[in-house]
Amino acid sequence: MIEERLNKLALSNIYPFHMPGHKRRELEFPNPYAIDITEIEGFDNLHHAEGILREAQEKAARLYDAKQTYYLVNGSTCGILAAISATVPRGGRILVARNSHKAVYNAVYLRQLSPEYVYPADTRCGIQGQIIPKQVEQKLIEFPDIKAVVITSPTYDGIVSDVAGIAEVAHNFGIPLIVDEAHGAHFGFHPAFPENAVKLGADAVIMSVHKTLPAFTQTALLHLCSDRIDHTCIERFLGIYETSSPSYVLMAGIEKSLVLVERQGQELFAQYAGILAEFRNSVQDLKHLWVPGAEDFSQDEAWAFDAGKLLIISRGRMSGQQLQERLFKEYGLQTEMSSGNYVLAMTSLMDRQEGFDRLSRALHAIDAGLHEEEITSFSPREIYCQPEKVMEIYEADEAPHGCVPLAKAADRVSADTICLYPPGIPLLVPGERIDRKMVETIRRCLELGLDVEGLLENHGINIVQIG
Amino acid sequence: MIEERLNKLALSNIYPFHMPGHKRRELEFPNPYAIDITEIEGFDNLHHAEGILREAQEKAARLYDAKQTYYLVNGSTCGILAAISATVPRGGRILVARNSHKAVYNAVYLRQLSPEYVYPADTRCGIQGQIIPKQVEQKLIEFPDIKAVVITSPTYDGIVSDVAGIAEVAHNFGIPLIVDEAHGAHFGFHPAFPENAVKLGADAVIMSVHKTLPAFTQTALLHLCSDRIDHTCIERFLGIYETSSPSYVLMAGIEKSLVLVERQGQELFAQYAGILAEFRNSVQDLKHLWVPGAEDFSQDEAWAFDAGKLLIISRGRMSGQQLQERLFKEYGLQTEMSSGNYVLAMTSLMDRQEGFDRLSRALHAIDAGLHEEEITSFSPREIYCQPEKVMEIYEADEAPHGCVPLAKAADRVSADTICLYPPGIPLLVPGERIDRKMVETIRRCLELGLDVEGLLENHGINIVQIG
Repeated sequence: MIEERLNKLALSNIYPFHMPGHKRRELEFPNPYAIDITEIEGFDNLHHAEGILREAQEKAARLYDAKQTYYLVNGSTCGILAAISATVPRGGRILVARNSHKAVYNAVYLRQLSPEYVYPADTRCGIQGQIIPKQVEQKLIEFPDIKAVVITSPTYDGIVSDVAGIAEVAHNFGIPLIVDEAHGAHFGFHPAFPENAVKLGADAVIMSVHKTLPAFTQTALLHLCSDRIDHTCIERFLGIYETSSPSYVLMAGIEKSLVLVERQGQELFAQYAGILAEFRNSVQDLKHLWVPGAEDFSQDEAWAFDAGKLLIISRGRMSGQQLQERLFKEYGLQTEMSSGNYVLAMTSLMDRQEGFDRLSRALHAIDAGLHEEEITSFSPREIYCQPEKVMEIYEADEAPHGCVPLAKAADRVSADTICLYPPGIPLLVPGERIDRKMVETIRRCLELGLDVEGLLENHGINIVQIG
Repeated sequence: MIEERLNKLALSNIYPFHMPGHKRRELEFPNPYAIDITEIEGFDNLHHAEGILREAQEKAARLYDAKQTYYLVNGSTCGILAAISATVPRGGRILVARNSHKAVYNAVYLRQLSPEYVYPADTRCGIQGQIIPKQVEQKLIEFPDIKAVVITSPTYDGIVSDVAGIAEVAHNFGIPLIVDEAHGAHFGFHPAFPENAVKLGADAVIMSVHKTLPAFTQTALLHLCSDRIDHTCIERFLGIYETSSPSYVLMAGIEKSLVLVERQGQELFAQYAGILAEFRNSVQDLKHLWVPGAEDFSQDEAWAFDAGKLLIISRGRMSGQQLQERLFKEYGLQTEMSSGNYVLAMTSLMDRQEGFDRLSRALHAIDAGLHEEEITSFSPREIYCQPEKVMEIYEADEAPHGCVPLAKAADRVSADTICLYPPGIPLLVPGERIDRKMVETIRRCLELGLDVEGLLENHGINIVQIG
């Protein structure tokens, strides 16, 4: 049974460098059956909050300085779907940072939107960098009918864009900025971490509280920060994308995590920042592995960087997958994800000194055994190119489809989204041309054992049949 | 704080005749933080289940005899959205039982569908009755381009339609039947309760496990039962409507509830059926209040009735709201909902003899104090009429809107959904004509203190501006 397997994990010595942000530390909490209720006398209806949930949401708005805040129990997913649906009319045009989560593309599909893309900058360490305000501006000049801008900041990897600069550009064109800040619920509470997008002028900000704060998985917040987005319209779409039976266990967990930040945040974040700084210091002497910090990103690469994200870059000597496996099998350290040339370890204010000590010792031991020889690896920079849009996502979806083997897919138009999971950023979306380079990229991802979503059995690929 | 309020409730003597089905009985469960994880080594990804979650879902399919079963963590809501999206192409026509949950109308809106409606039969006790196969057939003859049929069985009130008969009709026209069986997860395990829709030939069946089984709120199952619905298409839409970070706490709770049914179901359902029969027997002698059972519904009214739903009908002497309030304030019995002339008490296999004894005693005491005089009440039969469709739901949504006071709304076209909550069945959907009778109906619902969703402040109503 799932419960037994989870209990076994809880009793193991495996240290969690991954989500959720509570790090499996057992905060005091009642037996969940005892407090799991529905909308009854004295309680409240999340979809028309007027009592205890309204108060809780207002408290969250005050904590982040938002105009209005919504508790979400269907993850950041439903917040992203709702924010896009509420800001762009059906069939309208939207500017999308290409490194957006699947949920953004799903909103584009559902609402038959026409997306234009801004692509993230390259970085020296091979991950995707920031979105540049100037590029947003160029797209808004080129397509004056764009109705909203949506970016992800910070990224899964911790890269922060210039939200204030991008908000200013969007507002100059009279349109709202939506920020997927799923990984930034801990921003804005301590100088060691970047400011949050609510305070930087975004109009809608979506935060996963389970990712970097101690809340339960699939909980999130949607902040509205200006009058550019109609709150009744947001509420209508949350009513569509979110269960009509929201869990009080999840909602009590959201509040508990925010109350912790409110009451003990100053102390906890200071302590957390201290441990992080100490850890980063301790891995300065690694010879082959590299844990970049904010100072390692140039101004062109990143506006800021989340110190809580530990990118462990293998610099070609070992693949990210191999490093992740060794950390797990030999050292009992479970990291969040690995990609071609790096491992991502996620931390939060609930991490313990013990975890960082174990990680530092493990990295030193592994590093000492590495040699100079190169092994095949693959940096994300090589993966994400700029495919040509032949038709809209919903048009490709509704056109006749066929299936061809990957090897024969060059020059065809994709009918599916192909992405690496994690992080779930698409290589190709429906309606885009599959060029020779893309075929080669997908082939290599498969060879490296990366999890490529969207392919059919035997590496077939769904294509649009044209003509 | 929410948690404190929930703890206080847990310690109170209030007996829960409402969802969720575990009735706040503290099944053994770990501290939720200890087992709340994300997709990590050794665990599984709900959206591409290959390990422990796949096994759990296969076990659920075997229990209900489905071809394939999906765990849902965004409630029946996401299962309904996915089933409709996967069976009817964008802009297609669908046959909808008018007493459907909001989620059905939301799917119609999102996918720009053109709904035709079948209306439930009337019943002597004033609630909405069954959907008749013959009426489904008539609509399918009239609109041969209908792509799927969706009905709710059982209803919130416990009315079961002839699912086998309706499935046969749909299949004769080559289209699938989707059954919102949110309130029937306990069906099919004991002769005292109706058979479940999976076994009766439906093609997709959505069940809330939290409603009538002991699972956590917002958990559900989607069963596929035939090849009429493409499972890859269902999976794609579940990937859109459901968080990409599903909660293991919720999923472990789903499995736990099903394992209980599998291992102890026979004994527990027999016991439950016995207590229910005894209770129903004990309230036969009420003079003014009336608790109808299966035998009180004629063949025209209901195909079958869920004995687990206790409808307490006030027969005009007391409004449902007044009865609910007395049960709560004077007897500490929290019921699920009240409407014009009745109260609904929900039961499950987790209920205790004590609860039924208290309810029986309370009803006798209240009944003894009632007199023959009539007070103003309102039966649902008077509420749900058959408005004229002027335009499609999505067209009304996208047309220019205005707001008029309810008193001046007659003959205008609604731009909003107006419904009573609970149960969330619309009186009017966008694009329908507001006639004089409807204005009067809404006015009376407001007078009776019913919760009318969809009105603006000061009882304004959003209308479509035509011409």
